Amino acid sequence: MDDMTSTADPDKRAPGRPRSARSEQAIIDAVLGMIADGEALETLSIESIAARAGVGKATIYRRWASRDQVVVDAVASLKLPVPEVAGESVRDDLVTLMSRIGQPSDQPRNGRVMSCLLPQVARNPDLHHWYQQVIEPRREVTRRVLRRGIETGELRPDLDVEVVLLVLAAPMIVQRTMRWNPAIDEVGLAERVVDAVLTGAAPG
Amino acid sequence: MDDMTSTADPDKRAPGRPRSARSEQAIIDAVLGMIADGEALETLSIESIAARAGVGKATIYRRWASRDQVVVDAVASLKLPVPEVAGESVRDDLVTLMSRIGQPSDQPRNGRVMSCLLPQVARNPDLHHWYQQVIEPRREVTRRVLRRGIETGELRPDLDVEVVLLVLAAPMIVQRTMRWNPAIDEVGLAERVVDAVLTGAAPG
Repeated sequence: MDDMTSTADPDKRAPGRPRSARSEQAIIDAVLGMIADGEALETLSIESIAARAGVGKATIYRRWASRDQVVVDAVASLKLPVPEVAGESVRDDLVTLMSRIGQPSDQPRNGRVMSCLLPQVARNPDLHHWYQQVIEPRREVTRRVLRRGIETGELRPDLDVEVVLLVLAAPMIVQRTMRWNPAIDEVGLAERVVDAVLTGAAPG
Repeated sequence: MDDMTSTADPDKRAPGRPRSARSEQAIIDAVLGMIADGEALETLSIESIAARAGVGKATIYRRWASRDQVVVDAVASLKLPVPEVAGESVRDDLVTLMSRIGQPSDQPRNGRVMSCLLPQVARNPDLHHWYQQVIEPRREVTRRVLRRGIETGELRPDLDVEVVLLVLAAPMIVQRTMRWNPAIDEVGLAERVVDAVLTGAAPG
């Protein structure tokens, strides 16, 4: 409750950050906490977010036009920045990019937020559209590496680019959030996934 | 509430199924409903399951030794039976097996149950162990197809079998539960994933 109180009255905090940034962080934290506690998207409202964040509804509406936009920004806040790659070897760049996906994040709730939320996002056309705006720039970095590989001849010319994007990223998501196959050591997983996808299962 | 009442008193239902089977189904339905409603695993108890199912705690304990075992059976009930394969072409068998993963199931709640639950299961060693007993027989069918392919020469002899299992299954899970990449048409997805993994992204 002490935490709630200090969050509810951010002006009493140390003066390092501007008031609006502190309120925004309290709102984002409230949304993430509610999702991590298992609340369904349908039950999140501007009212319930405001109550949990200890702010007035007007504070939320000053920054966001709708509940869906708050949720998208909250989820986006869990993402690492759009990555950069060295641009020398396609294999190395893919390993760099895949290593970042589904990383055990600094807050244990984050994995749960993502995995509970994404299937709900998938069923809500507006949210799904906005969420794509968050992940598409990240996917685009990998897509450009694949296209570069086709140009340099490091990848086959008839590559099924969209499916290869999925085939590279999905194993990282599934193994790191669900520990799907306990027989797989997570050390070096990105390398093994990239190499399996590059080499192919059929004989050369 | 009418539903709750009729579930609470299964003896008043039509006499087609034995009483114990009807109680068990009510208990399984209660667990799945609670998870789909967003309840965290930690808050599921024999008491709360009994209350929602409209049965006494003794009815649960007659069939299950612990809460975790009820949860595992509830999740197992969402799975299709362990599949069979034709055993002629490795590619065809893999397409058959991958087509079954993450299928839009007949109840919309099921996708949400699985994706909310699995990250929680991953953090609970007992549950994770039991859950592996549910999915391992399914994974083993695919593993045997891969081993057969190595023997017949349809697959490379140095195949990273465990990682290839993950690389085949994870795209189906991620795309079908999260619609991760809307640019991918789900018709024919299993074929495209299997072909990408067989062929490899590097030039032949």
